[in-house]
Amino acid sequence: MARKASLSGFPELLPEERVVENHVLDVLRHTFELHGFSSIETRSVETVEQLLQKGEIDKEVYAVSRLQEDGDSKKAEKLALHFDLTVPFARYVVENAGYLNFPFMRYQIQKSWRGERPQEGRAREFTQADIDVVGEGTLPFRYDVELALIVVDALSRLPLPEFRLRVNNRKLSEGFYRGIGLTDTAGVLRSIDKLEKIGPDAVAQLLKDELGATDEQAQAALDLASITAEDTSFADRVRSFGVQDDLLEEGLTELTEVIEQASKRAPGKVIADLSIARGLDYYTGTVYETVLLGHEQLGSICSGGRYESLASNGKKTYPGVGLSIGVTRLVARMLSQGLARPTRSVPSAVLVALTNDEAWSEAQDVADQLRDRGIACEVSASAAKFGKQIKYADRRGIPFVWFLGTDESGTTTHEVKDIRSGEQVAADPSTWTPAEEDLRPRVYGTEE
Amino acid sequence: MARKASLSGFPELLPEERVVENHVLDVLRHTFELHGFSSIETRSVETVEQLLQKGEIDKEVYAVSRLQEDGDSKKAEKLALHFDLTVPFARYVVENAGYLNFPFMRYQIQKSWRGERPQEGRAREFTQADIDVVGEGTLPFRYDVELALIVVDALSRLPLPEFRLRVNNRKLSEGFYRGIGLTDTAGVLRSIDKLEKIGPDAVAQLLKDELGATDEQAQAALDLASITAEDTSFADRVRSFGVQDDLLEEGLTELTEVIEQASKRAPGKVIADLSIARGLDYYTGTVYETVLLGHEQLGSICSGGRYESLASNGKKTYPGVGLSIGVTRLVARMLSQGLARPTRSVPSAVLVALTNDEAWSEAQDVADQLRDRGIACEVSASAAKFGKQIKYADRRGIPFVWFLGTDESGTTTHEVKDIRSGEQVAADPSTWTPAEEDLRPRVYGTEE
Repeated sequence: MARKASLSGFPELLPEERVVENHVLDVLRHTFELHGFSSIETRSVETVEQLLQKGEIDKEVYAVSRLQEDGDSKKAEKLALHFDLTVPFARYVVENAGYLNFPFMRYQIQKSWRGERPQEGRAREFTQADIDVVGEGTLPFRYDVELALIVVDALSRLPLPEFRLRVNNRKLSEGFYRGIGLTDTAGVLRSIDKLEKIGPDAVAQLLKDELGATDEQAQAALDLASITAEDTSFADRVRSFGVQDDLLEEGLTELTEVIEQASKRAPGKVIADLSIARGLDYYTGTVYETVLLGHEQLGSICSGGRYESLASNGKKTYPGVGLSIGVTRLVARMLSQGLARPTRSVPSAVLVALTNDEAWSEAQDVADQLRDRGIACEVSASAAKFGKQIKYADRRGIPFVWFLGTDESGTTTHEVKDIRSGEQVAADPSTWTPAEEDLRPRVYGTEE
Repeated sequence: MARKASLSGFPELLPEERVVENHVLDVLRHTFELHGFSSIETRSVETVEQLLQKGEIDKEVYAVSRLQEDGDSKKAEKLALHFDLTVPFARYVVENAGYLNFPFMRYQIQKSWRGERPQEGRAREFTQADIDVVGEGTLPFRYDVELALIVVDALSRLPLPEFRLRVNNRKLSEGFYRGIGLTDTAGVLRSIDKLEKIGPDAVAQLLKDELGATDEQAQAALDLASITAEDTSFADRVRSFGVQDDLLEEGLTELTEVIEQASKRAPGKVIADLSIARGLDYYTGTVYETVLLGHEQLGSICSGGRYESLASNGKKTYPGVGLSIGVTRLVARMLSQGLARPTRSVPSAVLVALTNDEAWSEAQDVADQLRDRGIACEVSASAAKFGKQIKYADRRGIPFVWFLGTDESGTTTHEVKDIRSGEQVAADPSTWTPAEEDLRPRVYGTEE
């Protein structure tokens, strides 16, 4: 696709590209619902105050205001477009807690906006698919395992290259840093988060310059981050450092449970990767990132973690765990690299040809009979030569053209032509059905 | 639902309400695709310049700007959220004309924003479902009939009270006004558009005061607007006024074709109503409005019309015809009046109970077997007493609870309980299936 967005950072898809995006959205929705998650949406705007509670990305927030303010809105709170779905979800949970059943399992597929500098994988308007479970007061740890498995299930149903869900635990990292004498554990996490971008030497320098780490401390933090494993063997490797810390032990236990279950239920898909830090402050335990193999430079396509107190109304807290799939990032990649293609760009399986202009209503009767059985079709708008009508279908990828005629006795005849093979046969509009794979546009992976 | 939106004009739904909205969206999408329409989305923002081309509602437009502007964005064009889907669609067509097949049939289901004073039926953030067909240079009139029938098909599939799609033709009205000597035909249309709000006497006064109409002219305009018919008899009634005008004749022919076909294919659903004017300037022929019977004060739930030159790149024009369904308005009504209810608030058909904490993985095995056959289910997060787990399912409306056990020989046993009837039977996780009506949450009309 060589087309450029007419507004930088605000991509728009052509109909055949949208077929791919819709396929991704449908698969995600279907999978989330199979696992019992309910759909919600939150409004696109939040008060600026609400959005900036967690700090950090204020510069990228898009403010929203009436083009011509009147007296009414001057008094109103300042509004802005949400930049993710986690902060609005936390507000929604607190506001509606009395109407929700906990643990509350929801997915949310919506657009978000960030005024970042556009580049591949980063748009200013983008769709995310979030899935979270939130408890009232407490939330069983088990969901840290379950959420990882649901996301693996969802991504496995998409026409994508191999992926790895990389899991770490903040308690493990922070406990380890504390155990080796680095007390600004959030600072260490922020430095380690830069590992893939700037490399281990630069991170070591950061740790020494900014956090006062010794050579040995910096090296130990890097050594910890270098540990990856498909099974629970990572725990022994961490323990071999001989660092003693309660939080570290707690983190090891939790991560072991995730990896133990996940390696059994989704072998090879979920790995322990102790370099995963996540930039955001609100994660308190398990953290996830997901990499597409062969597309590492795209960044994580699905990230998240456990948060103990993102949502709170003062009296109660609502701990949760969840992940967010970057749908726009993923689909942009699928399209730009040709990883997936649709079998056609339009829903129609059949074009009902028009023999003459007066036959339109009769042609619609045929179309309605087909639609009654779930077969998408359209009727030619004008009675051009059949060759031209076939060409029209061909250009849209519509596989079948339906012809009405009259036999010697004056009875209406029906024939349907598969324009790919050229085969044309008599057909009954009340029973004819295309092959299952022709019924709807399908999306197939080009690596399959 | 007594809940109030925490931000006036920005409604948010509870999960069970969202089930109703999703049902509406699914039905619309399914129907539009059955008729061969492709899905697209446009970006949420347009340049202010683009949005205000058609004038009128500038005061209600929401501008969008970075909270902290940097040098880069100061140079950039001023942006705003779109207030409908027609203007963005017109821009999309012109920008992508080289990549589209004409006639281009698309539907578009997205949010729009208007800073109006909120009231029932008017939110500041709302979802619309638009369906349009656009030609390159020309577009057969036939689509004016087809679009009306598609919308009738879509609305008929929803759990709604009876509705009427009211159709008029601007050529008919304008030709008539011209024929009786009222030359500011757009002005007359704007006055007639207020008929339902302010009544015939006030409209007559407007016509006389603002447009210099005589008593006879005002009365003739009102008489025309009073004509409604389920069949093509309206044409004779118009002709009985004896007004001569070419545009009037053209309009009569067009409206006759719409009503003739529609009364045959969708009897009683589509009526000629010569009071329909539509406020917007860009309609040039057929105009549509839709009223829910018994809910007239809600306003039109689906409106649109034919536009000859909404989209143009200077060299080519792209005439189109389309309608827009006010999904938020419709769903808000369905919910506030209890017109439709979901059978449950969660997707899960089955809750797999947990016998003890160690049985979680085994319970997930059962759940995965059910999910493989498309049965949505969840596993209890903790091994509470069975009574408590059943109560949990009951609260969410989950109809079945699955129990794992062990018989004397140590073999795992499976039983499934329908918690509505209390019936509990042995079941095989690899074959058991709920009744079709229990598989997914369904939405039923309470008037059915």
